[in-house]
Amino acid sequence: MKNTTITAPKGFLAAGISCGIKISGKKDLAILACPTGAKAAAVFTTNKIVSAAVIVCKKHSKSAFIEAVVVNSGNANTCTGKMGLKNAQTMCETCAQLVNSKPNQVLVASTGIIGHQLPMDKINTGIILAAAQLANSQKAGNNFAQAIITTDLRCKQAFTTVNIDGIKISIAGTVKGAGMIGPNMATTLCFITTDASISKLLLQKALADAVGNSLNKLTVDGHQSTNDTAIILASGLAGNKPITKTGSQYKKFAAALSQLATDLARQMALDAEGATRMFTVAVNCAASKADAAKAARAIANYDLVKCAIHGGDPNWGRIICAVGDCGVKLNPNKLSCSIGNITVFKNGQPVKFDSKKVSKIIKQKEHTITVNLGMGKFSDFCFGCDLSAEYVRINADYHT
Amino acid sequence: MKNTTITAPKGFLAAGISCGIKISGKKDLAILACPTGAKAAAVFTTNKIVSAAVIVCKKHSKSAFIEAVVVNSGNANTCTGKMGLKNAQTMCETCAQLVNSKPNQVLVASTGIIGHQLPMDKINTGIILAAAQLANSQKAGNNFAQAIITTDLRCKQAFTTVNIDGIKISIAGTVKGAGMIGPNMATTLCFITTDASISKLLLQKALADAVGNSLNKLTVDGHQSTNDTAIILASGLAGNKPITKTGSQYKKFAAALSQLATDLARQMALDAEGATRMFTVAVNCAASKADAAKAARAIANYDLVKCAIHGGDPNWGRIICAVGDCGVKLNPNKLSCSIGNITVFKNGQPVKFDSKKVSKIIKQKEHTITVNLGMGKFSDFCFGCDLSAEYVRINADYHT
Repeated sequence: MKNTTITAPKGFLAAGISCGIKISGKKDLAILACPTGAKAAAVFTTNKIVSAAVIVCKKHSKSAFIEAVVVNSGNANTCTGKMGLKNAQTMCETCAQLVNSKPNQVLVASTGIIGHQLPMDKINTGIILAAAQLANSQKAGNNFAQAIITTDLRCKQAFTTVNIDGIKISIAGTVKGAGMIGPNMATTLCFITTDASISKLLLQKALADAVGNSLNKLTVDGHQSTNDTAIILASGLAGNKPITKTGSQYKKFAAALSQLATDLARQMALDAEGATRMFTVAVNCAASKADAAKAARAIANYDLVKCAIHGGDPNWGRIICAVGDCGVKLNPNKLSCSIGNITVFKNGQPVKFDSKKVSKIIKQKEHTITVNLGMGKFSDFCFGCDLSAEYVRINADYHT
Repeated sequence: MKNTTITAPKGFLAAGISCGIKISGKKDLAILACPTGAKAAAVFTTNKIVSAAVIVCKKHSKSAFIEAVVVNSGNANTCTGKMGLKNAQTMCETCAQLVNSKPNQVLVASTGIIGHQLPMDKINTGIILAAAQLANSQKAGNNFAQAIITTDLRCKQAFTTVNIDGIKISIAGTVKGAGMIGPNMATTLCFITTDASISKLLLQKALADAVGNSLNKLTVDGHQSTNDTAIILASGLAGNKPITKTGSQYKKFAAALSQLATDLARQMALDAEGATRMFTVAVNCAASKADAAKAARAIANYDLVKCAIHGGDPNWGRIICAVGDCGVKLNPNKLSCSIGNITVFKNGQPVKFDSKKVSKIIKQKEHTITVNLGMGKFSDFCFGCDLSAEYVRINADYHT
């Protein structure tokens, strides 16, 4: 079987093991390594309260080359004060020693419960175990993907290639996140590897753009976590001429990365806590890009819309209610709404439609809600998922 | 039994009947009348999309005297275009004829599904039936309270008296609303009667203040509806010297009204769709009043906090995550949080606590979450309720 995990691009090793953070005994510690050193770029949560891992990772990501990323699941290392910060640093130090690197060349990410100190004895032992298992295999990549998840039901991985000047460049990624997801990367940990040769500056731009149009367009519950981190490592081993300008080579790479990130975002929507289906909200004719984005997000976040979609119910009034309530400019006499290709509300007036047909559209694995604000020429979109009783069950006792 | 319904203050008649809007056959049309004419004040939703009933009611509420209020449940008369507007006017006209009044002396309110035209044949027949049953009894008041509810499990009524200059003044109210409730009065219909003699201007001020600190402090799902309306009618029949200044008489009246509105808001929180308990979020030491209100609302609206409360789970990390994510100024090194009287997070550091004790506090019918932002001297609060699987079940197929 062809390797399509994060170890597929040239130069990467991975491992994922269980060290006992999760009571279930499931995998909870992972390392990604690039022994030859990778250029790195990263984007982080904008929540004002951030994990100690985010603080340390932000600092280290400025290093010219990164040799490893160490990740734990089951504990967010957030709201853990000075001891939390020290523990995040220790994770980098322990990992650096084992992969013959420096602490500031190791990135770190954590996800899980907030407000508990990391069990450092287990984590240090786990890092030693994982480092010993680092391998270039598909299995190693799968183990990494498994070790970073929390309430996710499935590992979410994607792989693509792009041909630049006759050279095949590979890009692979894995993402975790099932709840506490709002635009701007909530409880999302995303790790992408590529063997492209590209400047650190352009790698950062490509990542920010790709995440902006994919992971940041996804809302499960509107909750932006304290730990969101997306990291890309570029080993430069593909042999392409280094991409240092925003020309056609860059555009090809950026487009492939963007498509990969969208693939991951869609997988997340479908694997969201309790979700049975996903949807895209497209908002057109807004007075500004910001208004279009705000309205799309408001609809995708609206519990009553999400419940109606769960029930396969063409209750479009809730969509209009969400739009009216979110503070964007709109023309009530031009406001229109379609579900799939069926118009349900046009120019401020209800339209007769076949509710069975619309219900069928909503019950698909994916559908699109289109809203026209009747104001201007700007558009934007958002991905969402339905809200089920299962979401509540999952989140009513995650702690205990 | 003493009458404590909206017909208790002197001068009011009420009725509530079934006219067939609701398929269940439950009561769905109500009239409140004040044959001697009442001073009226009202506050409305700030959603940009509003019910035709809200448009008409806003206009009529400017009349010097109001003689009736006609209300239907089961249909919101929202997103219904010109026909919807005509139908809301017709409701006032039909009612005015029957109570010997003028259309602009009749207020109107609707609640229910959005985007469907009112069944005007049923409604006109219903208004005739209800007008014939108008009575001053407790039963009539109860019928009114029953006819305005939708997914509410219970009628929500409150009654109080206040002595002003030796004269007993009565205030009574009923409110409906179980979902689509966010601060600023979402899917809330509230009707308050009083026999106080008070100027229209001061009545408006007292209502706006009372609602601002009660119904507007309640969030069930953060959804502000298109139909929210709170109306107070003052018959002036108590015999007190008219209240025309903001002196001690006004203060006494306003305090009693505010207490009554808070009573109704608490009843709403406990009767919210699927809710099993309520909570108050108190935010202190904010940089501004607006920041305090924003943070309190963000916490009360946060699905993961609401799920944790449903599970009796002291997962305070989600509270801190909500605060960090809501855009208010905060000092991470002074940020603190208590659940009930137990501190769980202090000055940015986790605190050891007895999680069984905290769980017991959360499982009470009501508890308070206190958050200190460590910035300034401003405080505010918000009422919320837990999020249960039942909320999803109720809202996944309300339409069909």
